[in-house]
Amino acid sequence: MKKNKQEISPAVIRRLPRYYRYLTELERLGFTKISSADLSRKIQVTASQIRQDLNCFGDFGQQGYGYNVKSLRESIADILGIRENNRAVIIGVGHLGGALANHTTLEKCGVKLVGLFDNSLDILGKTVAGHLVRDIKDVEAFCIENRVNLAVLTLPKQSAEEMARRLASAGVTGFWNFANTELRLPDLDVHIENVHMGDSLMQLCYKLKSGNDEVEN
Amino acid sequence: MKKNKQEISPAVIRRLPRYYRYLTELERLGFTKISSADLSRKIQVTASQIRQDLNCFGDFGQQGYGYNVKSLRESIADILGIRENNRAVIIGVGHLGGALANHTTLEKCGVKLVGLFDNSLDILGKTVAGHLVRDIKDVEAFCIENRVNLAVLTLPKQSAEEMARRLASAGVTGFWNFANTELRLPDLDVHIENVHMGDSLMQLCYKLKSGNDEVEN
Repeated sequence: MKKNKQEISPAVIRRLPRYYRYLTELERLGFTKISSADLSRKIQVTASQIRQDLNCFGDFGQQGYGYNVKSLRESIADILGIRENNRAVIIGVGHLGGALANHTTLEKCGVKLVGLFDNSLDILGKTVAGHLVRDIKDVEAFCIENRVNLAVLTLPKQSAEEMARRLASAGVTGFWNFANTELRLPDLDVHIENVHMGDSLMQLCYKLKSGNDEVEN
Repeated sequence: MKKNKQEISPAVIRRLPRYYRYLTELERLGFTKISSADLSRKIQVTASQIRQDLNCFGDFGQQGYGYNVKSLRESIADILGIRENNRAVIIGVGHLGGALANHTTLEKCGVKLVGLFDNSLDILGKTVAGHLVRDIKDVEAFCIENRVNLAVLTLPKQSAEEMARRLASAGVTGFWNFANTELRLPDLDVHIENVHMGDSLMQLCYKLKSGNDEVEN
């Protein structure tokens, strides 16, 4: 039975990208179907957990057949909203912003990069990953005109909140925040994913020190 | 009471970097003590959860006083092993490898970057973030000579496993893997943290589509 969205636990949503990655890889390798047992071994989630997770969203498996790789992958893409034509700008074209502009992550998540912005004269007017680096003073008009709904924040942390508020005023409702600060805007109707790359490095340091390899994500 | 490491749950270890980040920020802002209630509001973990998490590692708080910011921060740094003088190389100096070489994350986690390696003639011999980009053919000798125990993998995924095995043979036991593949080396005594930046972007896409903001990490 399909649950309504309020009942779907955060843990389920956290696991879905992992399912999606594996199914994408399986499809690339030419697999057309997979049993929940095989999927379980691949992604290290128990088969019953997989069935339970997917049941939140409807019936996907077929008794004695398993999952159809392509259709399950597409269904998860739909659940995750990665075929929604999200349109993004990157704010701050330093090393990390430039790397994300060149990286395939945005594209793989169905997010179309439409513009890059910075305030440094050193980089304004240059082209990075095929995109002109524009002046941050024009960002609101650009976002409105280009129906941008997502912003990748790779700017100094002291500027993150003010910039997010400017972008929100121009229709941006999603923030993928690499500014090394916990951005929260509870007064606005926006969604934020704060990325802290150091957290996984610290977990690795913990494993190295303790010899304990039990930190699963 | 201090538990032995086998009993400490992965969830606790996952939360520690968050505590560490906030305590670092508090210290920077000049705070010397904080109550578990205030810490709770700051990091959005319940006060009882914080007390329970920290109790895994010994007694930190003092009834009616709260936590000493500096000493708690240092204790967590010790638990996480981020003062262990880990020494790292970055393998693959493309956009992302270059960004990580220039980023403060390694340094903030107490990891010393000692070398950069690539196999592309375009970049060999250049200097990135103050480090010479060296030829990958010399990586084993360099790692042994420089007591490297951690490798940041920012190379194409089809090369990740072979490279990790070469590095492991030269004493590297920790892998921070950005190669967009789930690296597993169960036959070796090494620790791996596979980073999938797209997962958080997919969670953001989900929030944007569903309006559901309940995906906590």
